[in-house]
Amino acid sequence: MRAGSRRVLSSAAPAVAGEPDRPAMKTEVPGPRSRQLAQELSVIQESGAVEFFADYERSLGNYIVDADGNVMLDLYTQIASIPIGYNHPSVIAAYRDPKNQSAFVNRPALGVFPPQDHVQRMFGTLMSVAPPGLKNVQTMSCGACSRRKRGGAAPSADDINSCLKNQPPGCPDLAVLSFNHAFHGRTMGALALTHTKWAHKLDFPQPDWPVADFPLLQYPLDQFTKENQQEEQRCLDMVRDLMSKWEKTGRPVAGIACEPIQAEGGDNYASPAFFQGLQDIAKENGASLMLDEVQTGCGLTGKFWAHEHFNLREPPDVPFRIFNTWVGDPSKLALLEAVLGVIKKDRLVDNARDVGEYMLNGLVKLQSEFPNILSRTRGLGLMAAIDFPDVNVRGKVMKRLRDKGVHCGACGSATLRVRPTLTIGRKHVDIFIDTLRNALKEH
Amino acid sequence: MRAGSRRVLSSAAPAVAGEPDRPAMKTEVPGPRSRQLAQELSVIQESGAVEFFADYERSLGNYIVDADGNVMLDLYTQIASIPIGYNHPSVIAAYRDPKNQSAFVNRPALGVFPPQDHVQRMFGTLMSVAPPGLKNVQTMSCGACSRRKRGGAAPSADDINSCLKNQPPGCPDLAVLSFNHAFHGRTMGALALTHTKWAHKLDFPQPDWPVADFPLLQYPLDQFTKENQQEEQRCLDMVRDLMSKWEKTGRPVAGIACEPIQAEGGDNYASPAFFQGLQDIAKENGASLMLDEVQTGCGLTGKFWAHEHFNLREPPDVPFRIFNTWVGDPSKLALLEAVLGVIKKDRLVDNARDVGEYMLNGLVKLQSEFPNILSRTRGLGLMAAIDFPDVNVRGKVMKRLRDKGVHCGACGSATLRVRPTLTIGRKHVDIFIDTLRNALKEH
Repeated sequence: MRAGSRRVLSSAAPAVAGEPDRPAMKTEVPGPRSRQLAQELSVIQESGAVEFFADYERSLGNYIVDADGNVMLDLYTQIASIPIGYNHPSVIAAYRDPKNQSAFVNRPALGVFPPQDHVQRMFGTLMSVAPPGLKNVQTMSCGACSRRKRGGAAPSADDINSCLKNQPPGCPDLAVLSFNHAFHGRTMGALALTHTKWAHKLDFPQPDWPVADFPLLQYPLDQFTKENQQEEQRCLDMVRDLMSKWEKTGRPVAGIACEPIQAEGGDNYASPAFFQGLQDIAKENGASLMLDEVQTGCGLTGKFWAHEHFNLREPPDVPFRIFNTWVGDPSKLALLEAVLGVIKKDRLVDNARDVGEYMLNGLVKLQSEFPNILSRTRGLGLMAAIDFPDVNVRGKVMKRLRDKGVHCGACGSATLRVRPTLTIGRKHVDIFIDTLRNALKEH
Repeated sequence: MRAGSRRVLSSAAPAVAGEPDRPAMKTEVPGPRSRQLAQELSVIQESGAVEFFADYERSLGNYIVDADGNVMLDLYTQIASIPIGYNHPSVIAAYRDPKNQSAFVNRPALGVFPPQDHVQRMFGTLMSVAPPGLKNVQTMSCGACSRRKRGGAAPSADDINSCLKNQPPGCPDLAVLSFNHAFHGRTMGALALTHTKWAHKLDFPQPDWPVADFPLLQYPLDQFTKENQQEEQRCLDMVRDLMSKWEKTGRPVAGIACEPIQAEGGDNYASPAFFQGLQDIAKENGASLMLDEVQTGCGLTGKFWAHEHFNLREPPDVPFRIFNTWVGDPSKLALLEAVLGVIKKDRLVDNARDVGEYMLNGLVKLQSEFPNILSRTRGLGLMAAIDFPDVNVRGKVMKRLRDKGVHCGACGSATLRVRPTLTIGRKHVDIFIDTLRNALKEH
């Protein structure tokens, strides 16, 4: 039955009508127009991270068009943040729907004066895809926080007065444990949990919080079962040791923050057993387990949330008392409503599983053709990654790949990562694999 | 000539056509429908801060309609974040303009793949209203940061390795100085600078950074010239002492964060001389002076930025190396373009000065009528505030005021704050003053 549904899916690709058949390149990337615009932008702000300027009007589905008119297959999708591609007709329809106009033109202080359709909208969108067992949801504009769990007791005068001065007991001396190579964002609390590139961190003052190793598995997995088990156990032991050590120094760990798959840090995977063990340690110590699904959520891994692959005994934890003026943006909920509608109607999570498996097989085959260049092919659903010998080889191959019209992302020190839209079909994968093969041959 | 332009402005109020003539109330606020919705929302998230649910479709200009059909004059405007009011036709036109569609439906990773019209849009919007002398601009989704100034030298290996572990020298042990009663937001770095309500701070771990007193002036200003000068000098001396003390302890102050007018903390003002002195201290110590204009910017004080009232010798500082995936949202720039167009065309900053003076005179007169209840009437442009004897009296009067159809905000411990749209006219002020007078009489 599963094979049958797969056949149906692969014969009826869910891509947007009118999408280009293939990439079409006019210049290298960035081309002269992108370089000119970057020069102009640099006059008013730091713009060293700009890769190219895009023509979003002309981008469609799985294809992004840049300011020089180059049409590229986009397997990076705004760092995995455009789940059903560019200018999807259902998203455009939601934007144009008169019932949504007010959400776009009147941004409320959502936590104080929410729109009257907000509750219904929250149940229709985020709650409709809540992870099993999770009954709370917190919209945000950004950020990550830790705080002490407060029981029913009212705060004391000492609590209240000390917290206004950033001092204990009101502001308790707590820590959040995170992992080497983790990326959780760049606001101050979030940046303290981020350990990827030095460019993210250098010169920013940071709280002294514990950092554990995240497992670095060897591939192919079936040849390194014992080594990988030992590696995961080593990391769990380190978490346990750190929590015990920090408890003793008077700054106990209130929460553990972890990505289900470390993305920015190099697409690093761990087994369900590792995450089950991590949850056990959190429970034993009264700490929250916060799973950061900003890259892995919304169906990309072949389940709506990646941690659904882990068979956790209890759901992960949600911070409860985060607050700010905007908290979130109802206009984004209006768009999310359309996105989720398409994901459900077109069964795009199933598509992610199906096409993801097809893509991973293609990458494994490619690794066997280029064993001296490619290694550690890995993936889950449509998240896929492959390693190069070093950063220079990766850079050269990725440059060739993009100049041939396939746009991927880099992560870790020498990894190429793939983050397609959920509407990708086998025909797109064929273009990707063939183009990568050509780029590798030329290398 | 100034008087002449004022006459023109006051005879041609810039309010939106079709706006209600006056408030129209059906229930108390929150009414039964708002209370029902708050109950439903509390099932999935903390909703204790909700004041009422709004019907943004039916809200227009200076009037907000709630879920129970109450039509209120809105002098709080989403905590001062809707500068030209609800459903302004120019904002609706910008939202519907086909050239902006792509910005609404394709949110980019703005720092990496900006849209090709981004540079032009930045110059047409934010740079067109940049404070005198400021040539850089940084869009953000949120947040506040401090970091060490880095010269031309490349980072060392020690810098790079240590910063990934949150440790010096890569993550230097630096502090940001802020002020008692300051409010700069609630992400972790920002929260460390916020010192308003305990509910904002309690239970969140915080870095140990210095906090100075912000002047608390006595009113009317012309009767307390000497006392207020002494108070400001006391606060400046405290800043200087703290900076010297923290330099000695090895955690020097890299930046000073300050609101031009402390808003959430109670609408506290200081003189231009205070801010000039603060900038001098920052310069002497090689620290940045960051002015947080989130409440005071965009014309509300009768100049586009409040710090333009201070005649600073140099412009304030802008953080340069803040970065995240989204950085900002081009769809908000598209709306800002429309908002700024209206502000310029309708000369709304002049209107803020004119109507603001009229409103302040009205409040001063009201204070003279109720000297036992009202005190410390103060304002600049359309920012205005008045104090009550205590939090209970404020609460009771504000409840009456809102149930009669005028919606204001609270701040500090016993202050009522006014944050109208820039399109407010004298007729709105008359409704506000008359309704407040009635609420005070009934008290």
